[in-house]
Amino acid sequence: MADAPPALVVASNRGPVSWQRRDGQLRPKRGFGGLVTALGGVLQREPGTWVSVALDHADREVAAEHGATAFEEDADGGRYRLRLLDVGDRYEPYYNEVANRLLWFTLHELWAAPFEPPGTGWRGPWEDGYLPVNAEVGRAVAAEADADRSEVLLQDYHLCTAGESVREALPEAAILHYLHTPWVEPSYLARLPDEMTARILRGLLAADVVAFSSPQWTRAFRRCAIEHVGAAADGDALLFEGRRVAVDWFALGVDEGSLAESAASGETVAAGDDLDAEIDGRLLLLRVDRTDLSKNILRGLLAYEVLLEQHPQLRGRVWHYGHLNPSRQGVAEYQTYLEACEEAAARIKERFGESTCTLFVGDDYPRAVAALQRYDVLLTNPVMDGTNLVAKEGPVLNRRDGALVLSPRAGAADLMGEGALVINPYDVEAQAAALHAALTMSADERAARADLLRRAARIGAPEDWLAAQRVALRDAVSRRGVPS
Amino acid sequence: MADAPPALVVASNRGPVSWQRRDGQLRPKRGFGGLVTALGGVLQREPGTWVSVALDHADREVAAEHGATAFEEDADGGRYRLRLLDVGDRYEPYYNEVANRLLWFTLHELWAAPFEPPGTGWRGPWEDGYLPVNAEVGRAVAAEADADRSEVLLQDYHLCTAGESVREALPEAAILHYLHTPWVEPSYLARLPDEMTARILRGLLAADVVAFSSPQWTRAFRRCAIEHVGAAADGDALLFEGRRVAVDWFALGVDEGSLAESAASGETVAAGDDLDAEIDGRLLLLRVDRTDLSKNILRGLLAYEVLLEQHPQLRGRVWHYGHLNPSRQGVAEYQTYLEACEEAAARIKERFGESTCTLFVGDDYPRAVAALQRYDVLLTNPVMDGTNLVAKEGPVLNRRDGALVLSPRAGAADLMGEGALVINPYDVEAQAAALHAALTMSADERAARADLLRRAARIGAPEDWLAAQRVALRDAVSRRGVPS
Repeated sequence: MADAPPALVVASNRGPVSWQRRDGQLRPKRGFGGLVTALGGVLQREPGTWVSVALDHADREVAAEHGATAFEEDADGGRYRLRLLDVGDRYEPYYNEVANRLLWFTLHELWAAPFEPPGTGWRGPWEDGYLPVNAEVGRAVAAEADADRSEVLLQDYHLCTAGESVREALPEAAILHYLHTPWVEPSYLARLPDEMTARILRGLLAADVVAFSSPQWTRAFRRCAIEHVGAAADGDALLFEGRRVAVDWFALGVDEGSLAESAASGETVAAGDDLDAEIDGRLLLLRVDRTDLSKNILRGLLAYEVLLEQHPQLRGRVWHYGHLNPSRQGVAEYQTYLEACEEAAARIKERFGESTCTLFVGDDYPRAVAALQRYDVLLTNPVMDGTNLVAKEGPVLNRRDGALVLSPRAGAADLMGEGALVINPYDVEAQAAALHAALTMSADERAARADLLRRAARIGAPEDWLAAQRVALRDAVSRRGVPS
Repeated sequence: MADAPPALVVASNRGPVSWQRRDGQLRPKRGFGGLVTALGGVLQREPGTWVSVALDHADREVAAEHGATAFEEDADGGRYRLRLLDVGDRYEPYYNEVANRLLWFTLHELWAAPFEPPGTGWRGPWEDGYLPVNAEVGRAVAAEADADRSEVLLQDYHLCTAGESVREALPEAAILHYLHTPWVEPSYLARLPDEMTARILRGLLAADVVAFSSPQWTRAFRRCAIEHVGAAADGDALLFEGRRVAVDWFALGVDEGSLAESAASGETVAAGDDLDAEIDGRLLLLRVDRTDLSKNILRGLLAYEVLLEQHPQLRGRVWHYGHLNPSRQGVAEYQTYLEACEEAAARIKERFGESTCTLFVGDDYPRAVAALQRYDVLLTNPVMDGTNLVAKEGPVLNRRDGALVLSPRAGAADLMGEGALVINPYDVEAQAAALHAALTMSADERAARADLLRRAARIGAPEDWLAAQRVALRDAVSRRGVPS
């Protein structure tokens, strides 16, 4: 055992495998995204367990089959050791109320003042949903971990307080908590009830390493820990309750293999033929996003409208295609927001012609990939975004040296800012000016910038991204008790 | 001349004197508030000029009479040397659009995401209103100032860029700029168009001292100057373009003389008799505020509703009286907000009885003073507030050792926090709990806290507040060119 690699224990809300019932059987299917690529790959070679929460009926059936024990599952050529937690009625308050409403809105500065956040009703879902589910995940992680030899990797804002339960059960555990979201300044985080602010920060500080996707978020997190729970700065790390907690960032780059595979698929090729007909020789101004409030879709449309107002010669020569993946349409603000986007698109079509602008709302990944291959300008203007992977995947997939218009409040901007046109996401007029510059850029400048963008997007490929985190985690553990 | 005190030149949007037409004559009337008390007092003893903008028709008539020259005016026993600027059509974009909408909403974090701030339409009022009016004020200040001997005191967010014009005309001028508002973190300030963010910061950094009412705002300002325009930290000061700019805070306390005078007036006594009848032996839970979004009136009402839900024994024993001074009812958000408050009050009355709750919306200063003398609990829960003078005036006027429930995001909390019950302004349930604690507090604790509150409220009396600023300004000027 002495030479065996440390066992990984990963915990995230969504696991690497989902199930679908076909022909009376529950059939496993691997998920996608950088996390599954990075961790799924490593877990093919090293021992480890992935703890996650049962999200739907099929998950719950699988969980019921295995009870409180881990099990192995093959999916799409990989084998995974899984522990799936059915948290019952607590799922709704844990996931929809606290994680995706209270925390998501707070961490992306999405509350509509002066009425939001609603000042009542959070303690129930917090106490009866978020905290117990996190504790259950933490206990399951501890049960799967080997105190001396495991590396525990906790994922994202759903599990902010799970680390406390791991630490309580295994005081010596090596724990890294990665936040895929942004983080906010102390004054904004304080819109949460005080005990939640404190508990979330203490929960994260139970890790040895708190990791983000951008230095913007590490700075904000450090200030929150200092102002709200009295942590002390120690270089870039924090001292908290006699422990040293590293706070670091690890940019996640594109998964080239999986992108290449998607690009080569027959579905993508067919979708590309359809798109070519629609583009019809015009310049393609593209956005590809979930319909999330943080993505700033509406201001992008308004910027396009200003562009066509100010530059009549572009009318008829540009097609703005918004490829929108519907998201959280059960949340009233998301519905209202999508309606406002659709109204803006309708107005633009009425003013400048039916074929000026198309919003596609649906789930069609091959079409998204084909569009990314073909854009002249890609607009990624989120008001806040942990990374914004589209801003990285676009340049790698694109075949036209397309330009990138990018918000500095996306984590992607740290590395992609040099090749992109960086714009203030709140300033519609500045975005219109950047879109004009991008659409009229010389071929030489486009090529030079596209080269910079491709290089930057490849930094932090999923397996490198994970390896860097594990190095940081081992370093943090090795420095325990060593004065800095 | 060598021994004459330095001449003060003050500039603010609103001057110390206003005029009303009575019997065909324009009659001057002194304004009130800490600024007029402090500066008006000093200007009775020292030479100096107050530059301000003509706000209404009467002001403009007076300005027309005097043209581009300063004049003297007697008002309510004081004599003032005034320079009044008629800025014509630029007043609306300068004051209502940029200052009171773009800047006020930004500096109090009031924008309703994801739709606000509107991303277009600001450049016109900025370029045609705010900048030229500020330049005109700056030039008028420079014209009134003596390069070597004057101390220039610029006031508030209306005049963020005026300092640049003063500095350009008089490179050696001693300039202090006091902001009476809060200041926000770099990420929130960035909701302004980039060039406005930079220009505002550069404008303020043209001063020798940038002054705020709370260390919370100085910290945020320093971070903005560092992140947005590349200033460098030098202890608590900033280095910017070869100059050292002190960033300091000066808490403004109550004007006891003027409060005592108001308390003793016949109108206040009569208003108190009316109030006593309305109170009718119940506990008085009071708020006194402008109907500003930042004051958080609605969550205060919701907290009162939760209180009555949770503590039936208090029903009929407490009267919540909101004394609201109507403000900016021409701005749609303010109207909507006041309507929401009135709806909440109506619902509370319907649920718990007509006499449970009263919202008074009007301008009745004697009644406000009488109410402050009589509260058992004063609620001051702003989401952000430069100072919140009511939280200081209340304890000095109050005769019942009333308790104070106070937001930490009011500048007042720096000094008043020890005696007050400090609550998260976003957390309605925590506010309800604090109201309950305040209403049921023992007489001993009330008395001990009231004593702390009165002492804290007296710190920074207007003349002391001004004197401290002038000391800081002379200190900053004396350190020019001296390495730190």
